[in-house]
Formats: sequence, C-alpha cells, structure tokens
Amino acid sequence: MEFIDELHFLKEQLFFKERICRNEGFENIVIAGMGGSGVAGQIFREMYSEVPVHLVDDYSIPRFVSRETLFIGISYSGNTEETVSATKEARRKKAHVVTISSGGKLKGLGNQHIAIPNATLQPRSATGYMLMPLLNSFGMVKKKSIQSAYWLLSELDKDNSECKAHAKAIMQGEKIPCIFGSRPFASIAYRWKTQFNENAKVLAYSNSFPELNHNDTMAIAQTYSKGKFYFMVFASERERIRKRIAVTADITDAQFNEIRAKGRSDFEKAMYLLHYGDYISYHLGRMRNVAPEDVSLIQKLKVRMA
Amino acid sequence: MEFIDELHFLKEQLFFKERICRNEGFENIVIAGMGGSGVAGQIFREMYSEVPVHLVDDYSIPRFVSRETLFIGISYSGNTEETVSATKEARRKKAHVVTISSGGKLKGLGNQHIAIPNATLQPRSATGYMLMPLLNSFGMVKKKSIQSAYWLLSELDKDNSECKAHAKAIMQGEKIPCIFGSRPFASIAYRWKTQFNENAKVLAYSNSFPELNHNDTMAIAQTYSKGKFYFMVFASERERIRKRIAVTADITDAQFNEIRAKGRSDFEKAMYLLHYGDYISYHLGRMRNVAPEDVSLIQKLKVRMA
Repeated sequence: MEFIDELHFLKEQLFFKERICRNEGFENIVIAGMGGSGVAGQIFREMYSEVPVHLVDDYSIPRFVSRETLFIGISYSGNTEETVSATKEARRKKAHVVTISSGGKLKGLGNQHIAIPNATLQPRSATGYMLMPLLNSFGMVKKKSIQSAYWLLSELDKDNSECKAHAKAIMQGEKIPCIFGSRPFASIAYRWKTQFNENAKVLAYSNSFPELNHNDTMAIAQTYSKGKFYFMVFASERERIRKRIAVTADITDAQFNEIRAKGRSDFEKAMYLLHYGDYISYHLGRMRNVAPEDVSLIQKLKVRMA
Repeated sequence: MEFIDELHFLKEQLFFKERICRNEGFENIVIAGMGGSGVAGQIFREMYSEVPVHLVDDYSIPRFVSRETLFIGISYSGNTEETVSATKEARRKKAHVVTISSGGKLKGLGNQHIAIPNATLQPRSATGYMLMPLLNSFGMVKKKSIQSAYWLLSELDKDNSECKAHAKAIMQGEKIPCIFGSRPFASIAYRWKTQFNENAKVLAYSNSFPELNHNDTMAIAQTYSKGKFYFMVFASERERIRKRIAVTADITDAQFNEIRAKGRSDFEKAMYLLHYGDYISYHLGRMRNVAPEDVSLIQKLKVRMA
C-alpha cells in the first residue's frame, strides 16, 4: 500500500464503529500507548474530562490503578513492549482492561478486545482506528460530524496545495518546524511534530498557548539561528488565546504562519488539522527525497531490543 | 539580587517546611501552574501516583473537579491570570483549594494558603519553594535526603565547570539543545528546555525515553542540519532504558552527551540534575551576552494582556 493511499484512508477510519462495552462507573481511565497510539489517547483526553484520564508512555503504570480503573492498552501491532508490559500490570491490579490492536500479544490480555480490521497500514496511519473506539464509547461524536469530517478530508485529499506550499517554505532554508497549538487542539500540534519526525525525518518542536508564553517567548525573540525556525500556529476561537498569539507575534518579531481549521465541531476541526499536518510532513519528505513510509531504524531498534 | 545568587539559593529552599494540612481522602489531585510553577507540579506527579494527578496549564479546569478533589493553585507572584482563573473555577466547584504564592490575587482564594517567604526572586528560581510543600505533604522526602541534596548542590555551586563545558560546546556552532530524559526524571528534561529558553534565550527541545523511540528516532538519524543539534541524555539506572539509549545512539549515529546524576535517592538526583541544567543555561546566557534574568518580553506581554 502506497503511503499516500494510507493518508487518504484516514477518512474511512472515522466510520469505525467499535466501542467499549463497559464504560461507566470507573473512577479513572488509564490509557497506555506509544507514538501514534499515544496520540489517540492524547486527543481523547483533550476532549473528555468527566473522570481523570492518565496517559502511560512507559513500561509501568501508576500505583492508583485498581478495580475502579478502566484501562485501555493501544498498539497497532499489539506487540509494543512498553504497552504489553503496562497492560499485563493493569491486569494484575484487577483493572477493567480493554485492548485495541490488529493482533499481537495485546489481544487476549484484556476483558475486551477491539480488533483493528486493516493490518497493512503504518501504525501512525491507523490513528482513526485507535481514536474512534474511545470517542464512540463516550458518545463524543455525532454521525453528522463524522460525515462532515469525511467531506473535509476528501477536499484535502483532492487539493492540498496549501500544505505543499508550507512544505516548500520549510524545505527552502531547511527550517525546523515549530508548531504552536492550543486547546482543544494541543494534542494535534504534538501529532504534527511526530509526523515531521517520521514522514519527513526532520527534528521538530511543538508547544501550546498559553504555556509557551511562560518559557519559549524570550527564545522566539532572541534565539540564535532565528531564521532556521518555521513557526506554524493554529488559529484559536478563544479570545484570550487569540490575543496572546497576536501579542506574541508582535513582541517577538517572528513570522507566525497561521493555520486555520475548517469544520464546525471540535471533532471536525481536529481531524482536518490532523490531516492537514500529515500532508505537510508527507510533502516535505518527498521534497527531501526520503520515503515517508520508511521507519527502518525503528524496526532495527525493535530487533535489537528483543 | 544577582541571578547567580538566585541559583545558589535553590539549596536553601529545600528546607522549606510548609505542608498541606489536609491531604487525605481525595479521589484526585489537580495542580494548576504555568512555567516554573507548572514544573513543580510535573516533578511531583512523576514521584507521586497514589491517586491521579492532573496538571492544568490553561484558564479552565476539567469537569471532574469536585468536592473530592484536592486542588493546588501555584503562582510565584500570585497573579498569573491562567492560574487565578483556574483556581476561582475550582473554588466554585467546591474543591478543597490550596494556594501557593508570595502574595497576589491567589492568596485568599483557597481553604489554605502557603506563603513563599522570599518575594524578590525570579519565578523560575523559586521552584524549590513551590515543589517542597507538595513533597512534604505526602511524606515523600526524608530530612537526610534534603541534607544530602544540600551538599550536592553546594558542590555544584563551587564547581560547575562541567556545565560550563557543555555551554561552550553548545555556543560553538550555536547549537540547539535537545534534552532526553526518562522516568523518574522526565520532568527535569522539560525543566532544562524551559531554562534554556529563559536563561539563555535559545529555542530548545526535550523528550523522554522510551517515547522518543516512537517518533524522534528517524529524525535524529536523518534530519537536515544534524550538526546543529546538541544532544544531552540523562543516564538511566533502568536496564531497558539504558539499552534503548545505547542502541538509539548507535543506529542514529548521533553524539549523545551523557549527563549522570549524583545522589542516592530520586529526590537528590532530581535536585542535582535540576541545578546542573540551570548552570548550563546560565553559562550559555552569559556566553551569548544576554542577561539570564531578563524576561522583559514576558513582562511586556503581561502588560499588553491586562
């Protein structure tokens, strides 16, 4: 499967209807996942806050995990060693364990398994499969919104010249992508960073307003190699954040390239932004003559860690 | 007060004995704080996991906050607008509210106020004052360990030539500091990033093992401008993480500068690493002829946001 086909495939994944059978009465939710699986957890946590959602990106789980915990282990292959280790620990602590994977060791470790139907994708191209069961389970996305997101992504699939223009600007001068998001799309800014890493093989940086006003601000203004950074900032509908973005651009004298989400609901906007960033990093990879789908070093690392 | 004196002052802050009067029986803990105050929350969360600890770095709080929540609002000045806003919301939701500040609007908003005694520091130099009440309240640090940390930091105050050498290596070639930590010191890697931003006015990047193996790895190997990055990696005592660091350095062909913590307990090591990073960024700022204590743009931003 061509990597560009995988990108298009995101919109189909939004119709993935699986859900967690038992989702009520828990004191907290713990989601274990690395890389693209972790991003699904991050997006969910930013949208859901009825109970604390704790994310695990390591081998072990926090002490508070108990029978009162809904634990969700996510790994595309089902064999990510950190996630498998964390999920086994959650089982020992009697949490209610749900696993999401296309197979592997994870399958069978939990009280419920959600099978990802297509096992031929890059893990990071399967974000929809890993995210939708989380959103479906808590009634967080309407059918109409999924339909709208589908059309928005289709439009991007047809015409992503804007994304290509950003990639071109980054490529000229071999700049370091810096992505600044804000709630409810802070996790999407982080997703962009990881996609620049994997699709384009460039180091990248992300942070969010208002937090970045408490540390990056002085550096944006005065860093050496200022011309080496390419700032992309998600436009916000929150008045205080809008003002922060405008004032920060002004006092740091930095060029902030505004990224404006399309869509009505937060879900539509999140999916649009996610897809938009995928295209920038995809185009950048192509311009660099690196294969966006190549993650050979990560495979090599897994072999050497085995 | 000279900024270098402020750095020395961290070791005195470790003896700050204040604690939260009521710390038991809560279902969860929510800590609101931006910048240096947020870092105190991050360090605490990495050490404490008896109940979920949720960090807020924005104006509003999650829906789950209730009477069963211990809410802690931290701001050195007591006037950080995001933290004041979040704390007021927590009060309205009947959480048990504790405030930590040197004064300002925060004082008086909660059920208990912990007053930071010295109001003349840079906020980020007061991390000890903001962290110790959290650790003290849950019995997480022994007197002996504080004593040992005091001596470790004193040694660094006397001789920080190693830190200066790192700063010099970064300054030559005007490199971008990349700090890679791992639990239980992932939050310290983030602290280093923020200190490079504010003390040295350079953009910087941090991440942690094992998560960075799932995204940064390809980029570390193949990014353009590879020579522009200066990698500092915290040595780990965890066998799998040690192996990950070694294999990653090998397959990416990147120079990983190892940073080795001194001390016995995690607390001692965390404080040593924190102080060590402060010195690198301080020296880098001096070498760049920027004033480490200058945060004029952040002040300007606050004025324009008012």
